Amino acid sequence: VKRASALPGEFEIISRYFAPLASGASGAFGLLDDAAVIAPSPYHELVVKTDAIVEGVHFLAGDPPGLIARKALRVNLSDLAAKGAIPRAYLMDVFLPERVTENWLAGFTRGLARDQEEYGIHLIGGDTNSTPGPLTVAITALGEVRVGRMLRRGGATVDDWIYVTGTVGDAALGLAILRGALPEPAAADMAFLTDRYRLPRPRVSLGPHLIGLASATIDVSDGLAADLGHICDLSRVAAVVEATRLPLSAAARVLVGANPELMTTMLTGGDDYEIIFTAPQAAVEPLAELARVHDLPITPIGRIVAPFAKSEGRVSVAGLDGRPMRFDSLGWAHF
Amino acid sequence: VKRASALPGEFEIISRYFAPLASGASGAFGLLDDAAVIAPSPYHELVVKTDAIVEGVHFLAGDPPGLIARKALRVNLSDLAAKGAIPRAYLMDVFLPERVTENWLAGFTRGLARDQEEYGIHLIGGDTNSTPGPLTVAITALGEVRVGRMLRRGGATVDDWIYVTGTVGDAALGLAILRGALPEPAAADMAFLTDRYRLPRPRVSLGPHLIGLASATIDVSDGLAADLGHICDLSRVAAVVEATRLPLSAAARVLVGANPELMTTMLTGGDDYEIIFTAPQAAVEPLAELARVHDLPITPIGRIVAPFAKSEGRVSVAGLDGRPMRFDSLGWAHF
Repeated sequence: VKRASALPGEFEIISRYFAPLASGASGAFGLLDDAAVIAPSPYHELVVKTDAIVEGVHFLAGDPPGLIARKALRVNLSDLAAKGAIPRAYLMDVFLPERVTENWLAGFTRGLARDQEEYGIHLIGGDTNSTPGPLTVAITALGEVRVGRMLRRGGATVDDWIYVTGTVGDAALGLAILRGALPEPAAADMAFLTDRYRLPRPRVSLGPHLIGLASATIDVSDGLAADLGHICDLSRVAAVVEATRLPLSAAARVLVGANPELMTTMLTGGDDYEIIFTAPQAAVEPLAELARVHDLPITPIGRIVAPFAKSEGRVSVAGLDGRPMRFDSLGWAHF
Repeated sequence: VKRASALPGEFEIISRYFAPLASGASGAFGLLDDAAVIAPSPYHELVVKTDAIVEGVHFLAGDPPGLIARKALRVNLSDLAAKGAIPRAYLMDVFLPERVTENWLAGFTRGLARDQEEYGIHLIGGDTNSTPGPLTVAITALGEVRVGRMLRRGGATVDDWIYVTGTVGDAALGLAILRGALPEPAAADMAFLTDRYRLPRPRVSLGPHLIGLASATIDVSDGLAADLGHICDLSRVAAVVEATRLPLSAAARVLVGANPELMTTMLTGGDDYEIIFTAPQAAVEPLAELARVHDLPITPIGRIVAPFAKSEGRVSVAGLDGRPMRFDSLGWAHF
């Protein structure tokens, strides 16, 4: 049963576009069998994560195919990084609307090839479907950690410092600009912020080094306030963050300077794909050294405290003016 | 950002419906962290497979939610079975249209719970998305085999027997009936055939016992002729099948008796989720014993021969009348 489509048949698509992405992965059998095999390194276990992106929800319909592909992959790598795992491989289900052309597919797989090289991973399985719905990409990423050492959400204790990598809020500002909800800033800032939305920088090389230092970790995908809230929920603690300590990019600083209320967007907008984590005082020096070695800001933004009264929620943010910020919602919800 | 939906929030859905499916899987952390951990048993490696089903393509819009869930899971378990792997766990991305209700979701997860018990597996991760498109379920299944022993497509050699488990063509007939392309048979036959379409019976308990006996294996999802063709392609051989040897259910036999041309539908229609495999003469006795122990037909339907001239294709079927059958297409193509 062949559907009308601008594309060649499924097996042709696999052999032309997807099979090359499996070349070099011994257990993938060139995508020519029904399944792949993978085993963790000695003394390690596999860390598995699946996350999907949907056109119009997680990316914009006109986004370049290579960037869509890399975002789909990187949102998963970001979770692996936050869990301290070293990425190994991934499987991918793609759902393609009829308008997709071979040219689009070539760009999509070039994006994947580029990231595979950057992160040292391979495609080891997948499924290609046509859909009357939005373009959708679901990826299952596999990484590895030493047995029992995966970083968790639930280990934060009172007096721990709260850290975040990189800068916060760039992607939320980028999306607001792309949606026309914010006036366009200067061209360079516009390019920087929208790129931060379109192309996450998962902290893959840093993540595994947080094992032994961080007490609780999560990647910032739903928004800093919401994701810090997840750490607090699982750790049964609360968090106090000072907005003045938040690491902001130069571009973000310009926009927030003109409109301090944007801080709410930046703390609840999501798509940062940085790692937010807690760590005890003893980790302060090693973390400063890690930041230096990785040439990446690792910024203390607050402290873990005893749980608040339930009505107050888990995360309290002192705004730029020193007064408590109020959020209608801590962050992105998928429904 | 909340979407209009009949459903509660994502975290509520996870805790109410999906987290219970992870209970009992130690590496799943109750779906309360960002990733799960899994390691193969000693001397084993993991076998990974992903496959998705899309409303209107792989199942019908009105199908009961529990059956949709179980089909999504079972098409993956069928691949694991055909590769000789013992299922361990799965991850699931679901894409839910707005019409989906909590009642629907309850039925969907009840179906999964039932199959988890039947196959001894757990949900260890997932992602829940809303979509303006068709209901879609993508599952990544993880199983295990002893290192290096995964059954492959490429090991068939000349003179091997070709076997198929269970019966052939029931699902294709069931789908044709559901689509109104065939007149409805007697009620019992109708129920049997449509059930075979809606609920695959992956040969999970049999599959691992084929290791050491089968030379090449594949599960029948695209259609017997097409999937046998995949074995031939990878093994660089050809296949000769005799339609008179095909194992048919009583219901199928009635329909084919009245209309012998249905044989083409049954050989190319797909959705059988039986295992088709090749094995040498030495395996004949052990396979007969396996069939007895598993109370499952394992039927020789033809032989592997030297490759034909290219123009003739890889699979030749002698029809019920002894004359070669001609197929426009060997089976289901996803585009």
